[in-house]
Amino acid sequence: MDPEARAQTVEDAIEHRREIVNTHIDDYLPMGDPERLYQASRHVLLAGGKRLRPTILLVAGEALTETDPGTTDYREFPTLVEHENRIDLLAAAISVEVIQSFTLIHDDIMDDDRMRRGEPAVHVAFGSDTAILAGDTLYSKAFEIMLDTGAPAERALEAVDTLASTCTRICEGQSLDIGFEERETVTSEEYLDMIDRKTAVLYAAAASIPSVLLGADPQVTEALTEYGRSIGRAFQIQDDVLDLTTPSSVLGKQRGSDLVEGKRTLITQHAREQGVDVDGLIDANDPEAVTDREIDAAVETLEAAGSIDYARNMAADLVAEGIDELDVLPETEARTRLAQIGNYLVERSY
Amino acid sequence: MDPEARAQTVEDAIEHRREIVNTHIDDYLPMGDPERLYQASRHVLLAGGKRLRPTILLVAGEALTETDPGTTDYREFPTLVEHENRIDLLAAAISVEVIQSFTLIHDDIMDDDRMRRGEPAVHVAFGSDTAILAGDTLYSKAFEIMLDTGAPAERALEAVDTLASTCTRICEGQSLDIGFEERETVTSEEYLDMIDRKTAVLYAAAASIPSVLLGADPQVTEALTEYGRSIGRAFQIQDDVLDLTTPSSVLGKQRGSDLVEGKRTLITQHAREQGVDVDGLIDANDPEAVTDREIDAAVETLEAAGSIDYARNMAADLVAEGIDELDVLPETEARTRLAQIGNYLVERSY
Repeated sequence: MDPEARAQTVEDAIEHRREIVNTHIDDYLPMGDPERLYQASRHVLLAGGKRLRPTILLVAGEALTETDPGTTDYREFPTLVEHENRIDLLAAAISVEVIQSFTLIHDDIMDDDRMRRGEPAVHVAFGSDTAILAGDTLYSKAFEIMLDTGAPAERALEAVDTLASTCTRICEGQSLDIGFEERETVTSEEYLDMIDRKTAVLYAAAASIPSVLLGADPQVTEALTEYGRSIGRAFQIQDDVLDLTTPSSVLGKQRGSDLVEGKRTLITQHAREQGVDVDGLIDANDPEAVTDREIDAAVETLEAAGSIDYARNMAADLVAEGIDELDVLPETEARTRLAQIGNYLVERSY
Repeated sequence: MDPEARAQTVEDAIEHRREIVNTHIDDYLPMGDPERLYQASRHVLLAGGKRLRPTILLVAGEALTETDPGTTDYREFPTLVEHENRIDLLAAAISVEVIQSFTLIHDDIMDDDRMRRGEPAVHVAFGSDTAILAGDTLYSKAFEIMLDTGAPAERALEAVDTLASTCTRICEGQSLDIGFEERETVTSEEYLDMIDRKTAVLYAAAASIPSVLLGADPQVTEALTEYGRSIGRAFQIQDDVLDLTTPSSVLGKQRGSDLVEGKRTLITQHAREQGVDVDGLIDANDPEAVTDREIDAAVETLEAAGSIDYARNMAADLVAEGIDELDVLPETEARTRLAQIGNYLVERSY
C-alpha cells in the first residue's frame, strides 16, 4: 500500500476510535462539584486531541484477542482467559488519556505555553491555582477510572502499578527537560533518556496495559511495552520536527516555540555538533517579538545542517524497531493496524 | 487520667510511631534521578511533621488485630485472616504521609505560604516548576508505595481505590477553600463540607485503610472511616484556632495567616454572625506589613465574640462523635490510644 493510501486507512482507524473515546469521556469523567474545578479539569480533554494513546490501547486489545477491529464493544471486551467476565477496556483507554491531559495542564503552567489544542491553556483560562488543582484532580481520577475495568484483582493491580510507575517516570522526564534548558549542551543519549521518561513510557503503558488486563503472557506484555516505548520516542522526535515545520495555525500553538524557549532537542544537538550557533538562531531575549521570518530562517539553517533529516531518520528507525516487536502477536488486521499507527506517528504532518 | 498525664502518654505514643516512620521514609522513598526533583520531593517529608495520619493508621492496625502497641514489626504485620502472609502496614502508613506531603507542596504554591515546618516551602527553595513536579512525583509514588504492602490483591485494590477517591476529594476541598476567599460569606454547612473533603477524608483513609488491608468486616471499615472523618474535621477546626492563638515561632509559619489571606473559617463565620466586621480586622491590602499587634487585636475581638470558643466546642463535639465509633473494636490498649489521639488533636497547642 502506498503511504498516502495507508495514511488514509490509519487515519480512519484513529478517527473511529477517537469518536468512541470522545463520546464516552463524559461517562468516565462527568462534571462534578465544585463546577469550576471540573470545568478546568475537562477543558483540555474536551478540546479534542488525536487520542493516539487510547487508540493504541484499544487496537492492542483487538490484536491480542484476535478480535476484528471495530466489531466489539470496548466496554464489554473479551479476555484471553476462558469463562472470564468481559472487561471494560475503554475505561483503561480513557484513564491513559486522562493522565496525558493532566501532564499537559501542568506542563503548560511550567512552560507558560498559552495555547493548547487551539484553546487557551487551562492556567490562562482558569488561573494557575485552579490549573494545578485541575491536573491533580485528573491524576487521581485516572486511577479511579483504571480501577473500574472489572478485570480480576491481580491483573487490575498490575495495571494500576504500571500506571503509577509510568507517572513517576513522566515527572522525572519533565524535570530533566526543564533542567536541560539551563544547560549548554545535552548529549543525544541524555535527550533520548529524557523523552523516554517524559513521553515514551505513556505509549508503553498504553500498548502494554491491555495485555496485562486481558491476561496475556508476560513476554507479550514485555514486547508491547517495547513497541510502545519505541514508537513513543519516535512520536516525540517527530513532535520536535513538527514544532519547527508546521504552521502555528495547524499546530494550535506557536510554531518554533521549542527554539524560542531554548529547549534542547535531538535537532538542536545535531546542529550544534555541525557547528551551528544554535543559541544565536533566535533572539530569545524577547520571546514575544520573535517573527515568523526569524523562525523560517532558523529552520532553513537547521535543514541545511541536515539536523531535521537526522531527527526524521532516527524517528523512522525507532518505529521500525517498535514494529518488529509486534511479531509476538498473531497475524491479524489489528496487528497490521498497530504497525500502521507506528508509521503514522512519524509520517503525520501535525 | 488527668488531661496532662493523658497528653504525655499519647505524645509518647505518637513520638514512638513518628520515629519509626522517620527512620523508614528513606526505604520507601529513596533518592532518585534527577536528584533535584527528588530533593524537592523529599524536602517537606524530611523536614519533620507530627506524622499524625501514619500514627493513626498504625495504631488502628494494632486495635484491629488486638496486637499490643509497639510489640510487632509494622512491616510484617499479622492480618485478621488465618494462614495469610503478613503484610507491610508501614508502607500504607508512609503512603498516606506522602499524599499529605504532596498536598502541602501544591497548597503552599497556591496560597503562597513561604514557610512550612520551619523551612522554606518547596516552591520557595526550588522554584514553582520544580514544586509542581515534586508534588506530582509524590502523588504517583504514594500509589506505588500503597501497592507494596503485600496484601491480597482484592484488598490491595480496595485500599488503592480508597486512596484515589480520597485524593479526588482533597482536590475538590482545596478548590472550595480557594473559592471561598472570593466570597463574602460561607455558611457553617459549606465550611464543614469543605474541610470534610480537604482534610477529613485523609484522616478517614488513614483510619480505615488498615481495616481494608487486614481483612476486617466492612462495618468495621465503615466505623473507622467515620472515626477518621470526625477527628479529621476536628483537627482542621483546631488548626484554624491554632493559626490564631499560637506564636509564629511554634507554628513554623506566620501566625494569623488565615486572617491575612482572607480565608473563611468557622471562626470568622461565627464572628460575622455576631456582628463583627471580619474583613476590617486586618488591613489585608499589604499582607507583608501586618503586625503582631494587629493580629493580637483581631484575636481579642474574636475571643470577645465567643467565636474561638465556638470553634473549640465544635471540635470537641466532633472528637466525641468519632470516639463513639470505636465501640465496634475490641477493648484493647490500642483502641484507648485511638480515642486519646482524637482528644489530643483538639487539646494540642501546636
